[in-house]
Amino acid sequence: MSTPEERPKKLARRLAPVLEQLQRQSVVESVTHRQQQNRSDLIENLVQRQQQAALVRELNRLNKADIGHLLNMLPADKRHTVWQELPDETAGDVLLELNDAVAEDLIELTDEARLLSILGALDSDELTEIDNLLPPAVLQQAIDALETNERNWVKQTIAYPEGSVGDNMSRDSLVIHESLTIRDAIERVRSAPELPPQTDKLFVTGHHHQLVGVVPLIELMRYPEDTLVRDCMDTDVVAFSPGDDAVDAGQAFERYDLISAPVVDEHHRLIGRLRVETIMDHLREVAQKQALAKEGLKADTDLFGPILEGARERWPWLMINLLTAFLATRFISLFEGTIQQLVALATLMPIVASVGGNTGNQTAALVIRGLAMEQIQGGNLGYIYRKELLISLINGVIWGSVLGLFAWLLYQNPLLGCVMMGAVMLNLLLAALIGITVPMLLVRLKKDPAMGSSVVLTFATDSMGFFLFLGLATLILV
Amino acid sequence: MSTPEERPKKLARRLAPVLEQLQRQSVVESVTHRQQQNRSDLIENLVQRQQQAALVRELNRLNKADIGHLLNMLPADKRHTVWQELPDETAGDVLLELNDAVAEDLIELTDEARLLSILGALDSDELTEIDNLLPPAVLQQAIDALETNERNWVKQTIAYPEGSVGDNMSRDSLVIHESLTIRDAIERVRSAPELPPQTDKLFVTGHHHQLVGVVPLIELMRYPEDTLVRDCMDTDVVAFSPGDDAVDAGQAFERYDLISAPVVDEHHRLIGRLRVETIMDHLREVAQKQALAKEGLKADTDLFGPILEGARERWPWLMINLLTAFLATRFISLFEGTIQQLVALATLMPIVASVGGNTGNQTAALVIRGLAMEQIQGGNLGYIYRKELLISLINGVIWGSVLGLFAWLLYQNPLLGCVMMGAVMLNLLLAALIGITVPMLLVRLKKDPAMGSSVVLTFATDSMGFFLFLGLATLILV
Repeated sequence: MSTPEERPKKLARRLAPVLEQLQRQSVVESVTHRQQQNRSDLIENLVQRQQQAALVRELNRLNKADIGHLLNMLPADKRHTVWQELPDETAGDVLLELNDAVAEDLIELTDEARLLSILGALDSDELTEIDNLLPPAVLQQAIDALETNERNWVKQTIAYPEGSVGDNMSRDSLVIHESLTIRDAIERVRSAPELPPQTDKLFVTGHHHQLVGVVPLIELMRYPEDTLVRDCMDTDVVAFSPGDDAVDAGQAFERYDLISAPVVDEHHRLIGRLRVETIMDHLREVAQKQALAKEGLKADTDLFGPILEGARERWPWLMINLLTAFLATRFISLFEGTIQQLVALATLMPIVASVGGNTGNQTAALVIRGLAMEQIQGGNLGYIYRKELLISLINGVIWGSVLGLFAWLLYQNPLLGCVMMGAVMLNLLLAALIGITVPMLLVRLKKDPAMGSSVVLTFATDSMGFFLFLGLATLILV
Repeated sequence: MSTPEERPKKLARRLAPVLEQLQRQSVVESVTHRQQQNRSDLIENLVQRQQQAALVRELNRLNKADIGHLLNMLPADKRHTVWQELPDETAGDVLLELNDAVAEDLIELTDEARLLSILGALDSDELTEIDNLLPPAVLQQAIDALETNERNWVKQTIAYPEGSVGDNMSRDSLVIHESLTIRDAIERVRSAPELPPQTDKLFVTGHHHQLVGVVPLIELMRYPEDTLVRDCMDTDVVAFSPGDDAVDAGQAFERYDLISAPVVDEHHRLIGRLRVETIMDHLREVAQKQALAKEGLKADTDLFGPILEGARERWPWLMINLLTAFLATRFISLFEGTIQQLVALATLMPIVASVGGNTGNQTAALVIRGLAMEQIQGGNLGYIYRKELLISLINGVIWGSVLGLFAWLLYQNPLLGCVMMGAVMLNLLLAALIGITVPMLLVRLKKDPAMGSSVVLTFATDSMGFFLFLGLATLILV
């Protein structure tokens, strides 16, 4: 029995004899200092000191999830040492717990014979979880080594596109025919050699393996044993198609508080099962991918990967950024004559651009959230435009005046203050307009509204910030 | 039986007679056009046409999750109409499904008598889910109306800070004493008047209500009925303390594939239960809060709320932005003399700032992800610094040269090209340095590393971009 924070402590306790041993060999400075270090430091030290036997012993005591967590944290070289020490059977389970980048690194490192032995310990569901990380030749061999049923299932599942329900479903589920009794169902549970993880219900099928209902596990114990499954099953089932988007499925899981759900084909035949665990993993991955994609990075970027690759990964985004920044400055070049006459304009113009970018990003963030939560639709788009424009107008008047006053005082030029105020106001209005329009447009083009919004936005608010400020200055000041 | 996409279709079918009725009254343009509209449009129309009876009928057919989803999407006035038509008992369940901002709006709108009647239909667990949205006086009355046991529990739970496990735990769980048999356990399940949602295991207690193990529900059916619970229970249990962070608990749920977990006090006494559903909700809320907080917005910002409030909510961030943008331009003002001599500098300087911001944000995003996944620790920080600086050097040389060439060609000035190249290189190095240091510092200060990183970063890369570019120009060109 242990709370999560106690686990490292427990580990530290287990490691204590080993550490004492190490100390007696007087290879370490002080025990008290070491005792403060966390568990990965402890394992790291075993790796470093090549205390192989102790390392293997300690690894055997950890569960696969904790080993996976440990490997994710270790720098590449130590990660490799620990990986080499893992028994093949454990290594397979651990592989499922790793980040994609770390798993890919370790797979690359492992020779084919060991890799096949590791994969041999996995069942078809586990294999399809990591199929996209494996070299095609090895994957093929691993698939060929499966039993016929499992092999067919893997082949079928792999065909579904990434991010679909089909790609995320698993094969294992407890199924019972509607004509049987609750007693039969319980017997079915009793006799299963291994129970599928996160089983909260039995799926009920009718003719031709068609899904007709479900029976929650807990209800099995509550109905009289000779009730027909048909008579007590729940028929209001949320089922998914293999082609459904897994993120949409995730929203349904949240809305209907699901733990598992059946996946059916077009004829309502049961073909798989979706589990809350897989869906949570998928949602987390997608969220992380989006956070990195916003900065133009790929999700499988390895923090500890090779440097030249790291540099090259950033080129596309750098290029886009260079291009938009360059284009934005073309608006400045139109007014070089004006700047020559009043160089204060060059100093103040980034403020106008920056304030616009800020407002635009705020509006876009609200719209993106509204879209994600399906709050925004055709009917209320006009309302949102009006509201955001009004907010921008209010803030433009207030903060434009503040900035105008600053500019006036700083350069002792009241007209410069007016230009500043006018440009800030107009740019805030424009920013709100673009902050709504860009994500809405991206959605209409079937793109992720978060992805790329900020590039277009920053380009627009920068360009227009420069153009409005310098343009007004040319009209009024020169 | 319906897949999620079929649900709206089903609804449309149900609404068809109502729509026909409406058409016969010739209040609508064309049925085919209308049939294309989605379900919320349909309900919206019923609201608009004041077809109250039809509206109530249709609402009764929807489940609470779907009504909640619908209310989240409706503009404020229509949202209010639908809310008024909901029976109090349904309204309570629906309230639990709403976004915080929408729920707050509706609660504010509802008179105290109805609100109390609505809350009266909720149990203690449900009440604590929305306690922070209720006016304190009403909450107190609702608590007073509960039975003694439930009342005590609510009072205890409310005391835990927001975002803690205690704040997210629920009271209901199936508990059994270790000295009983599997038969007793099954009887316990059978006799429970209502089963707690997402029950996947029974909690086993020993002396003084101390948690000693769990029995997965599915195993109840697999053990011989006269086995003692003590002899077959699983004792390797992941348990939480009420003071634990709920996000950390979420990571444990993911790592150990949990559906529910016990919450224990310092003496290992069972005090509550944590469910995967609550944890998923919490993780999603936190993620959304962070996405908005990055832009300086509060998570409970109502997309349909009052305008003046919307404007005021954005002031803190606008002010910070104004201040940092203003400070950054002070670096420009140092070089107004240089700009006067070569106005092209004013045109080109935003590019240097922008490229630096881009690289800094990329580095920061990687570091933030590394921190979130606990990949970064004391031991490998030096490695990460070296790697990111090298990447910046490589990209600085390559893209600095490209930009330098551009500047040279555009202004026919080779020295200007050199200045550009040097400034871009140096700013990229600086950006990488800051991109690592800022999130690491925020973590050390116990802040969220994502929150605010980009403000500091942009300020630094802007300021230094201007300073390096104009400084180098002053040294080399003037």
